[in-house]
Amino acid sequence: MNYRLIVRLLGAILLLEALTMLPSLVIALIYGDGDAMALLLSMVITAAAALPMQLLFRPEEKNLRAREGFVIVALAWVALSAFGALPFVFSGVLSNYVDALFETVSGFTTTGSTVLQVFEGQPHGIMFWRSFTHWIGGMGVLVLTLALLAQMIGRASHLMRAESPGPEFSKILPKTGNTAKTLYLIYGALTVVEFVLLIAAGLSPYDAAIHAMGTAGTGGFSNYGASVGELNNPSVEIIVTIFMIIFSINFALFYRTLTGHLRESLRSEELHWFLAIFVIAAAAITFIILPQYGSFGTALRHGCFQVATVMSTTGYATADFNLWPEAAKMILFLLMFVGACAGSTAGGIKVVRIALLIKQGLREVLRTIQPRRVSVVRFEGRGVEQSMLSQITVFFFVYIALVLVGAFLLSLFGPYGFETNFTAALTCVSNVGPGFGAVGPMGNFAGYGTMGKITLILLMLAGRLEIFPILVLFHPATWKRSS
Amino acid sequence: MNYRLIVRLLGAILLLEALTMLPSLVIALIYGDGDAMALLLSMVITAAAALPMQLLFRPEEKNLRAREGFVIVALAWVALSAFGALPFVFSGVLSNYVDALFETVSGFTTTGSTVLQVFEGQPHGIMFWRSFTHWIGGMGVLVLTLALLAQMIGRASHLMRAESPGPEFSKILPKTGNTAKTLYLIYGALTVVEFVLLIAAGLSPYDAAIHAMGTAGTGGFSNYGASVGELNNPSVEIIVTIFMIIFSINFALFYRTLTGHLRESLRSEELHWFLAIFVIAAAAITFIILPQYGSFGTALRHGCFQVATVMSTTGYATADFNLWPEAAKMILFLLMFVGACAGSTAGGIKVVRIALLIKQGLREVLRTIQPRRVSVVRFEGRGVEQSMLSQITVFFFVYIALVLVGAFLLSLFGPYGFETNFTAALTCVSNVGPGFGAVGPMGNFAGYGTMGKITLILLMLAGRLEIFPILVLFHPATWKRSS
Repeated sequence: MNYRLIVRLLGAILLLEALTMLPSLVIALIYGDGDAMALLLSMVITAAAALPMQLLFRPEEKNLRAREGFVIVALAWVALSAFGALPFVFSGVLSNYVDALFETVSGFTTTGSTVLQVFEGQPHGIMFWRSFTHWIGGMGVLVLTLALLAQMIGRASHLMRAESPGPEFSKILPKTGNTAKTLYLIYGALTVVEFVLLIAAGLSPYDAAIHAMGTAGTGGFSNYGASVGELNNPSVEIIVTIFMIIFSINFALFYRTLTGHLRESLRSEELHWFLAIFVIAAAAITFIILPQYGSFGTALRHGCFQVATVMSTTGYATADFNLWPEAAKMILFLLMFVGACAGSTAGGIKVVRIALLIKQGLREVLRTIQPRRVSVVRFEGRGVEQSMLSQITVFFFVYIALVLVGAFLLSLFGPYGFETNFTAALTCVSNVGPGFGAVGPMGNFAGYGTMGKITLILLMLAGRLEIFPILVLFHPATWKRSS
Repeated sequence: MNYRLIVRLLGAILLLEALTMLPSLVIALIYGDGDAMALLLSMVITAAAALPMQLLFRPEEKNLRAREGFVIVALAWVALSAFGALPFVFSGVLSNYVDALFETVSGFTTTGSTVLQVFEGQPHGIMFWRSFTHWIGGMGVLVLTLALLAQMIGRASHLMRAESPGPEFSKILPKTGNTAKTLYLIYGALTVVEFVLLIAAGLSPYDAAIHAMGTAGTGGFSNYGASVGELNNPSVEIIVTIFMIIFSINFALFYRTLTGHLRESLRSEELHWFLAIFVIAAAAITFIILPQYGSFGTALRHGCFQVATVMSTTGYATADFNLWPEAAKMILFLLMFVGACAGSTAGGIKVVRIALLIKQGLREVLRTIQPRRVSVVRFEGRGVEQSMLSQITVFFFVYIALVLVGAFLLSLFGPYGFETNFTAALTCVSNVGPGFGAVGPMGNFAGYGTMGKITLILLMLAGRLEIFPILVLFHPATWKRSS
């Protein structure tokens, strides 16, 4: 294990984090809510911790090995959250450090679960920082830092592998340096477009920025207690719905479209699966909730919004789906496992994996009927290797096991019942945000004690990093000296 | 598809079912509760339906192909349940046919979920038939019939493959004819031993028979509303606990022990996993419920009983675990997925699969650290083939998908909330019996309407047959004429 290199890289990442606090400081100075000092202090402390790490550790060997890549990625999220929590503590918005850490991890992992109980009258700078963590987390802080680090390290592909969501991402855009820049540009441009549209729909620039960043990162923090619903603006709901869908799509498709391959992008099998699931789920929910809302238009709007928010793992809400009929809730519950396309900012198991799991299940039925028949599982027009298929099914098992063990720990540490604990664990692993019961869209996670919150923090990190990098941290073989 | 052969075999199986109603008829005549006529009528109707199927269909080709084996097994359970429900209807105990069918499927699949709301004063013959279905179902009616059918059909190994629980069973005891007899003898002897012990502990012969059959089949029907707890007899509880554990063990181990290989049996890795899970879960629950019961002995007894009842998928209860702390309930919930050893009468995913899933998960972590390392998953001292591993992970996905889709359908058809629907689906797929909430150990499944009950019936059948034979029935390729 090349400790010097790891420390040095973490220093670089933290230095960058201090810089990312600058926009929030500017906002704080503009609004003058008295939170500027808290942000400035956090910047100074973060930079002061980062500089010696950067300057004093000079690694001899500059190449990263696979497990070092995983360790850096996992530790980077921990370190970023540890320092990112400071503004909440110093400003007194969340004076308990574990609460602040929960909120920051939820931000960076783009989960959007909150322990905040009061939304009105909170300082603008801190609330901006809260949503800004979504925006940074969305594409992965490390994809951003890659552009800077790529020159320093020989190859950073191991970082990419741990970071980028979904199994197929890195294959499509192989050159990490350029990749980061291109993705960054697409991501930024889409955020700006949504920001402008939200202002056009009647939001203040501040509210527009908060909700555009929350959508882009598929995070879900709002500066209103009743989320997007409190804005009471159907145009805003429609814009946010559309952009939640956009940010659910594999970014490589946007890249290909930009380079003139629109047709190829539209033929994407994963996109078809995603859209099919979306349409079926939204139609079913609209049908189920219709009696509750009376008007078809309103039911459709709420149905589409909530399906988009759960599939994209954003977690905004326009309605308290806790009060919906059980069948509508169950559809949302199922979607919490699914998530959206690989290579997007969304969490969850990912549509490509779900599709390949279903195809494997069907193949197994066929094999039962015709034992001698050999059949290949195909995706995007190509046969998928058995090793990839096995990896996906094992991933599914570990995912479910993590949710179940998480739900057990929450039942041990928390005051809530089955529904709340189970959906709290699931929503955190899938980085969605709200669950059912006490942690529903109009509730929050403040009721869990310290141990419960630490459990949820680990679940959010494990979900965001697609589990294995976090598990690697706990395996003794990672920390062995030799090999 | 060799329809003549299928019909003829189904006829033979139904004829046997008519005979199995005889002991219940005798009990009915002894107690004279007025249910003898209902049983006699059911026997006559079943035999009358079976005889022409047996006599008129003479197949030219007498060999079974794989998919015909699966179709027969699946249809046999449906046919047995359809006729086995008659005594409930004719006696008026469950006058609604869907209710009667639910109870019979729950009996034959050894689930033990009930729609019965009144237990006191029910006719003895019918209640005996209800528990007798457990005993028949336990080892699989078809393992019993195999002894008769083996001569008629060239090879019946496809039947064994679909019927016997767990992935490894048939390999250990290859000769189907002898196998059936040996297993039948072990099964019968163990039931008789428990029956005698229960009488020694103070139960009436009737109560002893009911509970011995329920334990042997790992079914769980009791003739008391509050299950074993109502007997209020600690000795009985301890005896039942021990026998639930015994019937959770792979019967091949008993066979090997009888043939002088005790040491080899004790080295079984699956047995070690099973016992380890049992001990850890029972200890944890005892610790968690201790404050509720005050005495360590009482907490230990309830803890062991409830862990044994859920792992063995029996479903008896001595305490209403609905009222336990959430963490204790969550442990039982996790165990509802696990089940017990392959080759036993228990349901669930089975310990061997869980062990191999965990080993695969750990291997994946190791692979993340050392990508080039090749490591073989070992079980019972041998390397396990990748194709078997893949099959198990796909099975896990289909299992979870079935539970989730089942829970969704129940939320659509039923009046209950998340906890009840989810655990109702799980407990039926795993053939356990009770769930949480309204379907808890002191509750019942009567509250689900016709569609809900049909959903649960399909889930019980799918779980008992380990899913694929039931899915095969719904796949068009099964019913194609050629090939």
